[in-house]
Parts: sequence; C-alpha cells; structure tokens
Amino acid sequence: MAEPLRLADLGEWGLIERLGAFAPPGQFDDDGALVSPAGDHSLVVTTDLLVEGIHFSDTTMGPEDLGWRAAAANLSDLAAMGCHQVVGLTVGLAAPAETPWAWVEGVYGGLCGALARYGGTLLGGDCSGSQQRLLAITALGRLDPARPIRRRDGRPGDLLVSSGAHGLSRLGLALLQGELEPLADPDLQARAITAHRRPLPRLDGLAALQASQPPGEPWRVAGMDSSDGLGQAVAAIAKRSLCQAVLERSRLPLAAAMAALPQAEAWCLGGGEDFELVLALAPAWAEALVEQLAGAQIIGRLEPGQPLGGASGKGTGPLRWADGTTLEPAISGGFSHFH
Amino acid sequence: MAEPLRLADLGEWGLIERLGAFAPPGQFDDDGALVSPAGDHSLVVTTDLLVEGIHFSDTTMGPEDLGWRAAAANLSDLAAMGCHQVVGLTVGLAAPAETPWAWVEGVYGGLCGALARYGGTLLGGDCSGSQQRLLAITALGRLDPARPIRRRDGRPGDLLVSSGAHGLSRLGLALLQGELEPLADPDLQARAITAHRRPLPRLDGLAALQASQPPGEPWRVAGMDSSDGLGQAVAAIAKRSLCQAVLERSRLPLAAAMAALPQAEAWCLGGGEDFELVLALAPAWAEALVEQLAGAQIIGRLEPGQPLGGASGKGTGPLRWADGTTLEPAISGGFSHFH
Repeated sequence: MAEPLRLADLGEWGLIERLGAFAPPGQFDDDGALVSPAGDHSLVVTTDLLVEGIHFSDTTMGPEDLGWRAAAANLSDLAAMGCHQVVGLTVGLAAPAETPWAWVEGVYGGLCGALARYGGTLLGGDCSGSQQRLLAITALGRLDPARPIRRRDGRPGDLLVSSGAHGLSRLGLALLQGELEPLADPDLQARAITAHRRPLPRLDGLAALQASQPPGEPWRVAGMDSSDGLGQAVAAIAKRSLCQAVLERSRLPLAAAMAALPQAEAWCLGGGEDFELVLALAPAWAEALVEQLAGAQIIGRLEPGQPLGGASGKGTGPLRWADGTTLEPAISGGFSHFH
Repeated sequence: MAEPLRLADLGEWGLIERLGAFAPPGQFDDDGALVSPAGDHSLVVTTDLLVEGIHFSDTTMGPEDLGWRAAAANLSDLAAMGCHQVVGLTVGLAAPAETPWAWVEGVYGGLCGALARYGGTLLGGDCSGSQQRLLAITALGRLDPARPIRRRDGRPGDLLVSSGAHGLSRLGLALLQGELEPLADPDLQARAITAHRRPLPRLDGLAALQASQPPGEPWRVAGMDSSDGLGQAVAAIAKRSLCQAVLERSRLPLAAAMAALPQAEAWCLGGGEDFELVLALAPAWAEALVEQLAGAQIIGRLEPGQPLGGASGKGTGPLRWADGTTLEPAISGGFSHFH
C-alpha cells in the first residue's frame, strides 16, 4: 500500500496550490485577497503565520522586534497589493501557559509601534494555550480598485524594478545565528541586524508609483513583495504574467558594502525577508519610478516566452540571466516552511 | 525576587483585558471588530484560534467536522455582531510536516461546506510547519451600521432571550471523550454528537430580529454568542451594559430529553460551544422574537444594579437566579484555554 501523501511531500507551494482549489479561481494568486468593492475603495485582506523555531526564535530577536516584524510582513503584503491605507490587524496569539506576560506585552508593543508608524489599529484577535509560540496576523488595508498591483499584470517588454537592496536581512540572520563571524565593518553589521529585526514595509511605494505614472499611460502595475526572496518574486510575476524574466547580473540590487561577501549574490536573490517591492512596469514608467523612489533600481525585464515548470510560480523556469545562463534553483526557489 | 507574571496567572480573560489596552477603547468589547463604514455597510472582522489538544482532537472529530466547526465558530461571531452577509474567511494552517494531505483536504472541505451553506468564499491564508496542528481563522462579514448588535446595549428592564437550547454540545463532547457511557436514548446520543461536531451558527437570527422589531421601537439589540457558555454570555452582556442579570431557573433553555441528566443545568449554563445567540431586548421585542424564531425562549431579564467583579466580563458578579441565590462560578465562568 502506498504511503499517504504528507505535507512535507508537497512543500509549501504545492500545498498552497492545492488549497487554492478550494477558493474561487485566481483568489490565491497575489499577496492578499481583494474583497469586492464598496463605494470608491476595495478592501484587501492578508494573513501570515509566524511560528517559533521556524520564523523566529529568542536567539535572533526580542519580543518587540518580533511584533514589529510580524506587522511589517503583513503591511508589506498590503503594499504589494497597492493599498493606500492600513485599516488594522487582528492577532491570534498561541503560547504555552508558562510564557511570561512581559513577552506578550513586548510583542504587542512592537505590533502597535508598526501601526503607529504606518497607520491602522489593533482590531481584535484571539489567544490560546499551545506547545509552541505562534502569531497569526491578519491585516486589512484599503485599495483604490482602479489602481491594483497584481502578479499577473506584467507584459513582455516591461522592465523589472526593485524598490531597494536585497540580502541584508539574510546577512543579519546569519550574524544573529552565529553562521558568520562578526563583520569587520561594524556599520554593516548593525545595518544587517536592523534589516532583519525591523524591516520597513514599502507602503511609500504606491505614492511613488502614482507620482511617476507617465501622462497617458494607463494603470498597469505587476508586482509582489520580496518576502520569500527576490528571485522568487521575479519568478512568480513572470509565471503569472506568462512571460520569461531576464535579470542583469550587473544590476543586482546588492546591499552596499555587502558585495564583497561570497554569499552576496545568493542572499540577494534567495535570502528572503527584505520586504521590498518587485514590480514590472512599462519602460517609461519604470525609468520615471527609479528617479522618484530613492534606492529603487531596474534589475531586468520581462520577455515573451512560455513559463516553464509548474503553475504555482515556484522554481526557476521563467528566470534567467541576460547572458543566457539559468539561475540555480537554490537562489531563486525561496524556502519551505515544512522541514 | 518575584516570579515573572505568566499567562497561566492571567488566564484568558485577564490576558484579553490587558491586550485590549493596545487597541482603541472599546475595540475588544464584542465578538468581532467593526471596520469603519464604507457606503451603506460596515465590515466586521473576527479571529479565532483552534489548537489541537485544546479545541479539538482526533478522538472527538474528523477533519471535515473540524473545518466545519472552525468556520461555524467564526460565522457565529459574525451573527453575534448582526452581520447580514458573510464575505469569507482567511485560514492560517500550522501543522507538522508529517501531517497527511488527506487531513488538510478534509479540514478545507469542512470549511468550504460551511461557506457553501452560509455564504462567502475562502479568501486566502498562510501555512507553516509546527509541532501542533492549529487553525487560525479570520472571518469577514457585512453589517448594516444602523443595525449592530453590541454587548453594551442592554438596559434595565430588557428581557434576555436565548436563540436555542444549550448543553447539547457539551453532552456530545462528554460522550465522544468517554466521560459518559453511551446514552440509553440513541436519538439524544446522535443529536448531542452532531451538536458538538456540526454546530449551526445563527445567521438566521438577524432576519428574525428585523421581522420582530415592534413598530416605532428603535434598533437597540444587546447580544453575543454563547460559544464560551450561556452563563458567560449573559454575564458579559450584563457587565458591559452596567446591569445585573436575573435568570429564571424554570426557563433555562435545556436541550429537550437532556433534563434528566444530573449535569443538565451545569452544562446548559457552562458547557459552552452551543453557538446560540444570547440577546437583551425591550420586552415587546423579546416577546415578538420568540414568536418568530423557533426554539428561542426568554430566560430572564436585566435589572438595575452595579456590576460586580472585574471589568473583563468574567465571573458571576452580575448574574443571579430569580430566587435571589447566586450562580456557582463553575457554571458561569466559562473556561480557560491556558492550562
């Protein structure tokens, strides 16, 4: 008799693909879900789980950092959908009974610190005992339905834009986990750790997108955030847009001062958790955006071509370097949370 | 040095009270949170955690039942806020890597079965590995902002109405856990188990409330659902409404055929998870509602009087029998999920 299929066999993307079959077509395609318009705006809802030992641990961050980061990850999903306003968060907190109140207080302090900076309020939630600490955050944001950002809206000829540098968060994690010796450059060390503990969701991206939209150019913005890695984000946009993505190695958005590290390229493409926006735009718009948004840069383009691999958006199928070589799966495949 | 305060010391209500301090005043008072109105309706959002070993186990229900129940618990919160439409759910699923896909498929099948019956779609979610199976559900519903149901809207003189019988779910749990021998009455046995595994959220309550509203009577409906126990719901309404609640022992909404059991009264008041609506209404409206809504009955009234005990809504402070005796804490205090 065959062994039953386990979640470990499916992996995270395989699981999400199967779960998407329970939802209306296309519902699971983006960073969040669009709730049908009411008046002049739509609502976006997005949910993230953070599990101790997988997404966080006491060795890499304190409770305030965790709360900030949990909020930031969700607000980044709202930014990646094109939200102009954060409504707020609900928080499901599961923790062992012996968990100190001070830890919970720190987490909520961090969550509310992010809300104080980006808008929105704590809307409610639930709590329960459990064996392992876990946060389940659902964020709500408002969107102008005429200005969405969707993965599937790329077209051949679009330029790919990254809103900022990548790899610093993964470097910070490596330093916090003792995977690397402390760096000779104390400034880089501090910046990497801050990038990991206190990521900044790019809710400023929408205003820059609007300000840089060329006259006469209709609103068409493909994009997502780079929470699962820059390579993963580019691949998902290319696949959903039925294109191939070509990245320019010389234009990789490496965090400054990080280029000397041997892991720089791999962590830039596959490190994850940088929470930048990755966009595909008509060339004139892309050029105008990088003028407008400090730190943004053009990293490649979409080309005609059938996407390869599964429909889930995973893998390197649609992704290659401008010199024609393909990217290694390890640096573009993201990572699985089922170990 | 004093031991640090732990979640076990606070208990669930104490914890929620402290967490409410991070939110705008009154935000944590009800079964869900109201998102500011847009056009002619408001949105309600509510989050529930279900943790294996605390809220469910393989010995008491299969995955389809669990999914149904998880959806029903959240839809019950929407009903308790006065929602007229279910928008949908997001689902955070945490499970060990060795979890069979068939289990997950069953859970989502149950969730979507409830959505097929009550409306709404699966909006999205997240998944992760974990040591313990856990579901974090966030439900969204639409509300006419002129017709909310809030815990704090009760007034002295209101009659207390239960939308249906209580105690059957707890009886079902006792039978499933082997706490009781199988019942002599096979029909009661089956009904109790179904009540536990397949609770029915009272989304029909709003239409009945509207239909029974006496001419000239303004909309004022206090209420919540009885997920944490009938006694707990009555106590929370009384406290938030700054009243005392008086229950009539002869009018306890015991599930029929259950009255002969020695646990009947305790489980009716404190068993929990019956997911009925508990409402406080002006007398004429209450009388009209029980005519309109099959199974609904008047169970007591609100009287003037300072609520006793903490502001969290927990405890028996504001709750007594019509004969003047107070209720035992064990049957009105609900239960804690931090053991």
